[in-house]
Amino acid sequence: MAQNIYDDDSFFSGYSTLARSVKGLDGAGEWASIRALLPPMAGLRVVDLGCGFGWFCRWAREAGAAAVLGLDLSEKMLAKAAQDTSDPAITYGRADLDRLDLAPGAFDLAYSSLALHYLASLEAVMAAVHAALVPGGHFVFSVEHPIYTAPTQPGFVTGDDSRRVWPLDAYLIEGRRVTNWFAPGVVKHHRTVASYVTALLSAGFTLTALQEWGPSAEQIAEHPSWADERQRPPFLLVAARRG
Amino acid sequence: MAQNIYDDDSFFSGYSTLARSVKGLDGAGEWASIRALLPPMAGLRVVDLGCGFGWFCRWAREAGAAAVLGLDLSEKMLAKAAQDTSDPAITYGRADLDRLDLAPGAFDLAYSSLALHYLASLEAVMAAVHAALVPGGHFVFSVEHPIYTAPTQPGFVTGDDSRRVWPLDAYLIEGRRVTNWFAPGVVKHHRTVASYVTALLSAGFTLTALQEWGPSAEQIAEHPSWADERQRPPFLLVAARRG
Repeated sequence: MAQNIYDDDSFFSGYSTLARSVKGLDGAGEWASIRALLPPMAGLRVVDLGCGFGWFCRWAREAGAAAVLGLDLSEKMLAKAAQDTSDPAITYGRADLDRLDLAPGAFDLAYSSLALHYLASLEAVMAAVHAALVPGGHFVFSVEHPIYTAPTQPGFVTGDDSRRVWPLDAYLIEGRRVTNWFAPGVVKHHRTVASYVTALLSAGFTLTALQEWGPSAEQIAEHPSWADERQRPPFLLVAARRG
Repeated sequence: MAQNIYDDDSFFSGYSTLARSVKGLDGAGEWASIRALLPPMAGLRVVDLGCGFGWFCRWAREAGAAAVLGLDLSEKMLAKAAQDTSDPAITYGRADLDRLDLAPGAFDLAYSSLALHYLASLEAVMAAVHAALVPGGHFVFSVEHPIYTAPTQPGFVTGDDSRRVWPLDAYLIEGRRVTNWFAPGVVKHHRTVASYVTALLSAGFTLTALQEWGPSAEQIAEHPSWADERQRPPFLLVAARRG
């Protein structure tokens, strides 16, 4: 079972102040890139793994999805998500993504934003998603980029020549990484880009897109502090289809 | 046209001393991993893009390939490759991988070891390889890992806490990287992992394997200096099939 850090009071308070929590999808720099990986939403049955405050679930319905199931481990997030909609075609439920129990062939699209790097193993979730999709169904997800999760001491450092560099180490050494982010002891599970891809292929998916997201020049002009993100990508975006 | 650094006297002399030049495939740490990505070789028509001294071409024939075409830009390497075989089913030819001209459907396997990162663009070579393969044909290649090619100042540094870190920067800033390696001014072209994968998918290939190679514990026991390579992977290994 993944750590339920989102229900920690300090973490929840801090996380709730992020632009992506306040403004929703448009507050997330990578959203336009993820949206471009999604199929036309009209009529789709959608499951959102790690739905958080439900921003994507509501967007999916507005974009024409027939029904959306939002799953999360955090009771606090689910409570807020439920509060923010009265759409009967959106259902929220509590679930541990390590032990996902979905009806076979029940969905046309599985979506997951920045959740899978909290899981110690991908095997179960990949198999569960594959089985839950119809043939030809789509799986689109983002995770913290392995370059971002790898270091034993994450954080940019400035060298003698005043260049900002990311102190990469332990990239091929997969496993737990404990950081302090809104709360002490946040547990993530580092794995390589290849491990994400291999887990997909092993589960029977066909890879259709892989993106290492960083801000555009326009985004950096608007948010100058984002420039660092082009030095090392913060997010990995992946799209795949069930064969 | 890619830089022909391999015909530079200093570079050629230096490169010729590497274990992979002297001992061949077994002198290359990543060879066992690449070999595991290859299809059974019996009867295959093979093209090797950047064949160097011809070690892979000779191995392919010993492993049962019907015919092997080895292509390289370096006249010095091709001369040595030609000297080292009298097998009439191995043909060597000089070629610029940027302007590959291969007969349609003439090959069952295209192989390339540590060559494609010298090319400014992948589009032409991917299209040429796709057209040169039979449907179902295999494309297996290795390149210097994007984490390895990205930095503006490549080379491990030791931090205050005596950890060795790789000073990653400019990962999302693709393009020329000039390094000194056996000769000054060696030109490589950095691109992201996602760009390699996207180039393959855009050309019509299906990705079948992606590996970020680093040495095993056994290899590190034998070559202790290789331990750094687990901090940041030196090579990216890719396998794909023509649909």
